[in-house]
Amino acid sequence: MEKLTHFNEEGRAQMVDVSGKPETVRTAIAQSSIEVNGTIYEHISKNKVKKGDVLAVAQVAGIMAAKKTWDIIPMCHPIPLKGINISFEWHEEKDDHKQLVIKASVKTIGNTGVEMEALTAVSAAALTVYDMCKSIDKGMVIGPTFLMEKTGGVSSQDYRR
Amino acid sequence: MEKLTHFNEEGRAQMVDVSGKPETVRTAIAQSSIEVNGTIYEHISKNKVKKGDVLAVAQVAGIMAAKKTWDIIPMCHPIPLKGINISFEWHEEKDDHKQLVIKASVKTIGNTGVEMEALTAVSAAALTVYDMCKSIDKGMVIGPTFLMEKTGGVSSQDYRR
Amino acid sequence: MEKLTHFNEEGRAQMVDVSGKPETVRTAIAQSSIEVNGTIYEHISKNKVKKGDVLAVAQVAGIMAAKKTWDIIPMCHPIPLKGINISFEWHEEKDDHKQLVIKASVKTIGNTGVEMEALTAVSAAALTVYDMCKSIDKGMVIGPTFLMEKTGGVSSQDYRR
Amino acid sequence: MEKLTHFNEEGRAQMVDVSGKPETVRTAIAQSSIEVNGTIYEHISKNKVKKGDVLAVAQVAGIMAAKKTWDIIPMCHPIPLKGINISFEWHEEKDDHKQLVIKASVKTIGNTGVEMEALTAVSAAALTVYDMCKSIDKGMVIGPTFLMEKTGGVSSQDYRR
Amino acid sequence: MEKLTHFNEEGRAQMVDVSGKPETVRTAIAQSSIEVNGTIYEHISKNKVKKGDVLAVAQVAGIMAAKKTWDIIPMCHPIPLKGINISFEWHEEKDDHKQLVIKASVKTIGNTGVEMEALTAVSAAALTVYDMCKSIDKGMVIGPTFLMEKTGGVSSQDYRR
Amino acid sequence: MEKLTHFNEEGRAQMVDVSGKPETVRTAIAQSSIEVNGTIYEHISKNKVKKGDVLAVAQVAGIMAAKKTWDIIPMCHPIPLKGINISFEWHEEKDDHKQLVIKASVKTIGNTGVEMEALTAVSAAALTVYDMCKSIDKGMVIGPTFLMEKTGGVSSQDYRR
Repeated sequence: MEKLTHFNEEGRAQMVDVSGKPETVRTAIAQSSIEVNGTIYEHISKNKVKKGDVLAVAQVAGIMAAKKTWDIIPMCHPIPLKGINISFEWHEEKDDHKQLVIKASVKTIGNTGVEMEALTAVSAAALTVYDMCKSIDKGMVIGPTFLMEKTGGVSSQDYRR
Repeated sequence: MEKLTHFNEEGRAQMVDVSGKPETVRTAIAQSSIEVNGTIYEHISKNKVKKGDVLAVAQVAGIMAAKKTWDIIPMCHPIPLKGINISFEWHEEKDDHKQLVIKASVKTIGNTGVEMEALTAVSAAALTVYDMCKSIDKGMVIGPTFLMEKTGGVSSQDYRR
Repeated sequence: MEKLTHFNEEGRAQMVDVSGKPETVRTAIAQSSIEVNGTIYEHISKNKVKKGDVLAVAQVAGIMAAKKTWDIIPMCHPIPLKGINISFEWHEEKDDHKQLVIKASVKTIGNTGVEMEALTAVSAAALTVYDMCKSIDKGMVIGPTFLMEKTGGVSSQDYRR
Repeated sequence: MEKLTHFNEEGRAQMVDVSGKPETVRTAIAQSSIEVNGTIYEHISKNKVKKGDVLAVAQVAGIMAAKKTWDIIPMCHPIPLKGINISFEWHEEKDDHKQLVIKASVKTIGNTGVEMEALTAVSAAALTVYDMCKSIDKGMVIGPTFLMEKTGGVSSQDYRR
Repeated sequence: MEKLTHFNEEGRAQMVDVSGKPETVRTAIAQSSIEVNGTIYEHISKNKVKKGDVLAVAQVAGIMAAKKTWDIIPMCHPIPLKGINISFEWHEEKDDHKQLVIKASVKTIGNTGVEMEALTAVSAAALTVYDMCKSIDKGMVIGPTFLMEKTGGVSSQDYRR
Repeated sequence: MEKLTHFNEEGRAQMVDVSGKPETVRTAIAQSSIEVNGTIYEHISKNKVKKGDVLAVAQVAGIMAAKKTWDIIPMCHPIPLKGINISFEWHEEKDDHKQLVIKASVKTIGNTGVEMEALTAVSAAALTVYDMCKSIDKGMVIGPTFLMEKTGGVSSQDYRR
């Protein structure tokens, strides 16, 4: 049976030793989303072309959170990230609801992957949208949140959903 | 039309002035979940009764993240949290998949609510489970993540999903 | 001769005991600025009405920095801020240069003032503008940075520049 | 048998709900120490009267660490500290060794005590002395570290070593 | 006389330039301990085999603190840690007291050593045990805390206690 | 027209991908200053030769802030800094005023420059001086703050003011 690599001989959690893994370019893309009602959709999308820009704040939040993933997820390695990009897309839902799809792509040169950084970025961005719109409706739903793609390291470990 | 309260007169984001709101006991409960395959379920649930405890780490992650919500979500107020509790529950899914349901309840005495703290706690806990099990399967899916309940402040603003 | 209040009997720095001071509404307004050339001015101000918004990022930076003033300025008290607002204004300078004036107003209910939070907010906002425009010109100059106004606490200590 | 208050009904850790406890002035004093050899003692104590001041850096470290105790000790509450003071004293040891005794006193007005803040302050100060002198001797020993005194809250819970 | 390397020409502290030192695998092992009474020993060791796991929390605390050593110890370099492992062992003391011995081993590939990271990890773990058991007895004593071993860099600088 | 490199195709901010840039030694020197009245000058400069040392605290603040530049300036890369040095100099101003000039030099080996780290260091140091002297006079003025020099990377991009 495959082993959970985050545990030491006592069965307790550890930050796995990755010093023997190759230092290569590594990328990851993750996706989250948040479903909002029509009123919120109007606010966010109209504000975008005017001034108050929910998505600009959400994106800063996502980028800053990616950089502190190691401080949020206990067993994550501190990784000197080389690039982070976050993008948004609106999808239609039933009724007047819309789904804001959030994608983050993260890149580093290092000994271990950046899946958690990408997943943390989209999570923080989605939470920020919730925060900024919750005065209108607290019923917004975040997710599903998942890894879309991962490259680098031993190539057989590349992942594509 | 209802207004997004996070914007100032220039239409830019601000941290809303809550100094005029009453200082009362405020609580929030949020829920997230993560769907895992049978192998991961075995690992997590067996480890729980033995030693290596994924959920113990996830829960510490959730509690610590709740305390730094103000540093992750840009427009959130720093709030001196008075209590945080995180609990877990397994639900059956189709095939051999299981859904780990994560609930966080947060309490404070303050001028503004703690919805974001509860939502951040469950998000960080779910991300931590993903991190600790991703060596087995990267296809785990996080969410839906949502607010279940909020009390305190002006009572007409209490929320129950 | 007036005494520096940040030192203990050994002459070393301390975080002054403010537990005996009244808990009142306290506000502070600080100002900084950054002088940029015409090209940068074009970029920032045109982007503002389109999409890429330097000032939106600068403002998020200012708000988030205000919240961690206690972690940047060693002898500052951790203060639960109740509101932060940042605004921008362009002034003409000689040649084609423009000065971006940045103001932050901060509010709390507490035992000590929020001057440092306002000063830290405008400093971080100005540094962020520098960061985002430095690929065009590294000669931008930040400052002067100063306190404009402070209210709350013992009223005789109110300050207006 | 007395109960560990940091565990919830599932037997997992929680940040205990203190919202029902009285908001009172609370203080704590903790002590740590570091034993150094004669050469290091000379460096530290001579530098003190000249310029390079190990103890000044150690003290800033202690004060800043006290403020982030909640981010270092997982189940600690975020507490708005009102005052922190750190002092140093040299004690004779056998041979030419000296013991640097470090005391921190911390004060707040809140629902829970500040023992951990005082203990974290002296620990960080001692670690900083180690860091700044380790190029001379890596054999320095830190501790014992303990709580000396605690007041506030329900008075029957005052503690004096 | 050997020089303290943390001071610049003005005699003030600096973060020493290590860019000329070789980038090699570097490890450090540090030890701390905490002496507890019989009741606390029962709680911790019984909980370990059941559910509420003080040591699991302490260990997460140690790992997370190691990662932010650079933010706790002022002159420490930010170091991208590659692995952290923490282990526990009970030793008998007089009466019914027991000593919980905590060891942390830390590994990196870098220009400077990781002694402070290992020392910070065991200190944070010991403080966390204190925090979680202090409702039973505030008289617990932490330490001695010291470096056990250091390898890497110029080999003549390896250290073994 | 030159392009602002911090924006993605949607015109939103991103953390620019620097993984393709060469990993070289990079340095930056920045300067800030703070103008103080004669009383404050007396306090700071006399304390320096005695015990309470404003500049020692300011310098620790500058060094620690440089290390968290990536957490203060949203689009900055996390950079493993290799050395930081801060120095002070007094200049005469009209009346009895003096200007404290603060310089920070920062060094790394990496894919991107450290201008922001040097600018953040001097800003935090100046703010700390303000904080520690504001009980005497709130009219102190910080700045101008600017980049003096930058080396490393593609040599044609070296900058000297």
